[in-house]
Amino acid sequence: MKPKQTVLVFITLINILSAPLLAQKTKAKNEQVKSLLSTYEKYIDDNNDAHLKEFMELIAIPSISSIPANKPDVDKAAAWIVNKLKAIGITTAQTIPTEGNPIVYGSWDKAPGKPTVLIYAHYDVQPVKESEWNNPPFAPKIVDEKILGRGSSDDKSGVMITIWAVEAMLRTDGKLPVNVKFIFDGEEEKGSPSFKNFLDKNAALLKADFALNADGSQYSETTPSILMSLRGAAILQFTIKTASTDAHSGQFGGKTPNAAVALSQIIASLYTKEGNVAVEGFYDKVVPATLEEKEMIKKLPYDASKDMKILGTTAETGDTSFSPLERVWYRPTLEIIGIQSGYTAAEGHSNIIPGNAMARITCRLVNNQSGKEIIDLIVQHINKNLPVGATVTYKFSNGYIRPMKFPADTKAYNYVSDALIKIYGTQPLQIGLGGSIGPLIDIYEVLGIYAYSLGLQQADERKHAANEFFRLSGIRKGQLIYCYYLQHLADEESKLKK
Amino acid sequence: MKPKQTVLVFITLINILSAPLLAQKTKAKNEQVKSLLSTYEKYIDDNNDAHLKEFMELIAIPSISSIPANKPDVDKAAAWIVNKLKAIGITTAQTIPTEGNPIVYGSWDKAPGKPTVLIYAHYDVQPVKESEWNNPPFAPKIVDEKILGRGSSDDKSGVMITIWAVEAMLRTDGKLPVNVKFIFDGEEEKGSPSFKNFLDKNAALLKADFALNADGSQYSETTPSILMSLRGAAILQFTIKTASTDAHSGQFGGKTPNAAVALSQIIASLYTKEGNVAVEGFYDKVVPATLEEKEMIKKLPYDASKDMKILGTTAETGDTSFSPLERVWYRPTLEIIGIQSGYTAAEGHSNIIPGNAMARITCRLVNNQSGKEIIDLIVQHINKNLPVGATVTYKFSNGYIRPMKFPADTKAYNYVSDALIKIYGTQPLQIGLGGSIGPLIDIYEVLGIYAYSLGLQQADERKHAANEFFRLSGIRKGQLIYCYYLQHLADEESKLKK
Repeated sequence: MKPKQTVLVFITLINILSAPLLAQKTKAKNEQVKSLLSTYEKYIDDNNDAHLKEFMELIAIPSISSIPANKPDVDKAAAWIVNKLKAIGITTAQTIPTEGNPIVYGSWDKAPGKPTVLIYAHYDVQPVKESEWNNPPFAPKIVDEKILGRGSSDDKSGVMITIWAVEAMLRTDGKLPVNVKFIFDGEEEKGSPSFKNFLDKNAALLKADFALNADGSQYSETTPSILMSLRGAAILQFTIKTASTDAHSGQFGGKTPNAAVALSQIIASLYTKEGNVAVEGFYDKVVPATLEEKEMIKKLPYDASKDMKILGTTAETGDTSFSPLERVWYRPTLEIIGIQSGYTAAEGHSNIIPGNAMARITCRLVNNQSGKEIIDLIVQHINKNLPVGATVTYKFSNGYIRPMKFPADTKAYNYVSDALIKIYGTQPLQIGLGGSIGPLIDIYEVLGIYAYSLGLQQADERKHAANEFFRLSGIRKGQLIYCYYLQHLADEESKLKK
Repeated sequence: MKPKQTVLVFITLINILSAPLLAQKTKAKNEQVKSLLSTYEKYIDDNNDAHLKEFMELIAIPSISSIPANKPDVDKAAAWIVNKLKAIGITTAQTIPTEGNPIVYGSWDKAPGKPTVLIYAHYDVQPVKESEWNNPPFAPKIVDEKILGRGSSDDKSGVMITIWAVEAMLRTDGKLPVNVKFIFDGEEEKGSPSFKNFLDKNAALLKADFALNADGSQYSETTPSILMSLRGAAILQFTIKTASTDAHSGQFGGKTPNAAVALSQIIASLYTKEGNVAVEGFYDKVVPATLEEKEMIKKLPYDASKDMKILGTTAETGDTSFSPLERVWYRPTLEIIGIQSGYTAAEGHSNIIPGNAMARITCRLVNNQSGKEIIDLIVQHINKNLPVGATVTYKFSNGYIRPMKFPADTKAYNYVSDALIKIYGTQPLQIGLGGSIGPLIDIYEVLGIYAYSLGLQQADERKHAANEFFRLSGIRKGQLIYCYYLQHLADEESKLKK
């Protein structure tokens, strides 16, 4: 207990000592920025209705990247965004082809000598189970200050808010204080398989001093946050086959293997009684959360009931020797994301012994775990635990997303933090994310810059699930944050140059 | 070992002693019947093309009884059959409404003083997973002497063959040797929930001396068989809920219960390591196969590889302390007939922790087991084994099918056996059936007669599965069997009257 307490006191002391100084220094600047923002605010508010109309237009395009049949919609969404970028007066606006879906690229480069900010977001969306939506997923609607629809939060909000912020500055000032490059991914929801190659090929074009990820979230309506870590991801699909056809359950039942049962037995074997992953070696390379990370979690106002209310769960599960946020941010998982076997339409039933059964797995991985190694371990486990009469085939994904951590001791971090403090009026929390955003790793590796997350999504917005929504409040707040960020970055960087 | 051997020898002796006598007696009669059959044969062969056309018309109607949307098709099939019955010159042909789908009733009653034979078959069919069919299930086609399509075997073959046999006799002789009543069920594939009530209400109308079930099968192309037992059936659907919405697998993974995992764990818990049912009390009321039944099985030319080839399985599973046929005919089963959770469309994947998961169970039951009791035991087991954070809801079926046995020491049995010997030229095997035909129990209980099975289906015809087919050879053979049966029954019964 001792060391932890010491650190806590130390941090608290620094906060107390530095607080008055910070307040004094920022007061004068605040006045100046207030008037600056208020001019943008006017543009933002005056154009709110038009922007909402645009937003709904984009959400209405079902740009589901993981379903080939939706490819025309993906292209349509990309073209729509290019048109919008052109309309706001950006220098270059075009799609750049990749092996997969196009990247939308937009750039405003008329601030020579000024820094360049690269803004990442994605315009593709998750698939939908239409029957579970109260309002059709691609017929967006505004209800109770929320906009409903697939992609409204994840991540068409990121695409539109950053475009609108730039629009507000261009329309108000006729120029931007820095150079801006947009890259809007069309494959994030299928793991951005083409993104790394795209960066490699276009590294010169995309050269930037800072990067932001607009596919990000804030801790709550009133508390901002900065993302300090991401988990990696690896997916695997497998099919258990016990027969080449379904069998009459009466005629053959008692001597015939059942694929649905075999699949269930295999899935059950993947977990220990305590709910940990039973796959041999699964945790071997996990690096425990650092003391700092544990302290960070302790400082967060974590309320278990909050997420439980969002999801409608009745229990928090998992290994209680780690705190809930530690489990979500710094521990790996193996989730079954889908299973299907036999006849399962809502109406009717087919009295058969299923001959095949399919499951999809997603692992969330943490530092030092390799997606390929983990999938190999799972495959070994399944092969070893195959029930009598069952065979298995695997469908591997064409890539894995690595985990990533972001440092807090960089200028880039501070600029994001400053913008959040400015608009929210309070210090951002440092948080982790259990999810995975592969492109951020690619950006770091290819362009050498950290893409700090600066997005307006919130945790309860049913991302990936039915009835996804985005809070209208995020639209205004988001634009102000981006306007301030760009101006503040320009100011601070020019001071440093002097 | 001793008692078994003694019985075997005894039976063999009887067979040897009685064989020459039987041969002598039947020779003369055979000649007489041969000419009789040959007149029907001519009609049958002359009308084969027209009959196939009719058969395809009926198969093309997707009369799936378990899908409410197909109700108009069910009605259409019933009306089609009524028209056909009228066309062959039956006395009465009509549908009789029930709480569910109509029963097609047809009767020819112009043989006063002669016995009445009730013929059962069903015109409804199982649902289809269309993607698994090589040829569309409701666009029947003839390939390699087989007619392909849903219901071609189960049981539109039964409906049409019996109608055609009566047609052949009426067209050839202008009359039938006995009175005939057809009842064609429209709900067999959903457990015939309205059938018992239908019988109760119409017991006087349906009064008969003998009954046949045309939803039956023969052991092989060359070996006939008579069904001596049926298993009962009980179905249960349950849904595991861990959340009211699917959850982002990154954002919430590590502290959120997974319905697909919970479902798999529950299903796995239903079985012992050896593959028996682990539900407490499941086997308590099972009456073991009798010595006779075990001997009957021993006499059958059982070839494990035959069904394995039909199904494409690589192993026979189940409790090896019972023989395979004993397991299928005289032991109960608990099969998972369908599971679904999460996003499982062929294309795309949704990276979520499923909030709910559904399973359907079918139990095949044997003598003395009660469907209700068994379902209660399963419910208790599931409730007791619910993982943390999971709740369960059940959807119970509106009835259970009881198991049934048929005696071999009845006139009714002999007439069926004689007809099979006549056409196949060999003794029928006595067999059990792992499946369930509820109406046969209802017929016995309400009308007091055993409906012996006399159908032309074969085990490999993919009943209930994709790519169901029926052998064209069964059409001709089936009509001859029914023609002979009706004539033979009339002859024998009138001899008894004298």
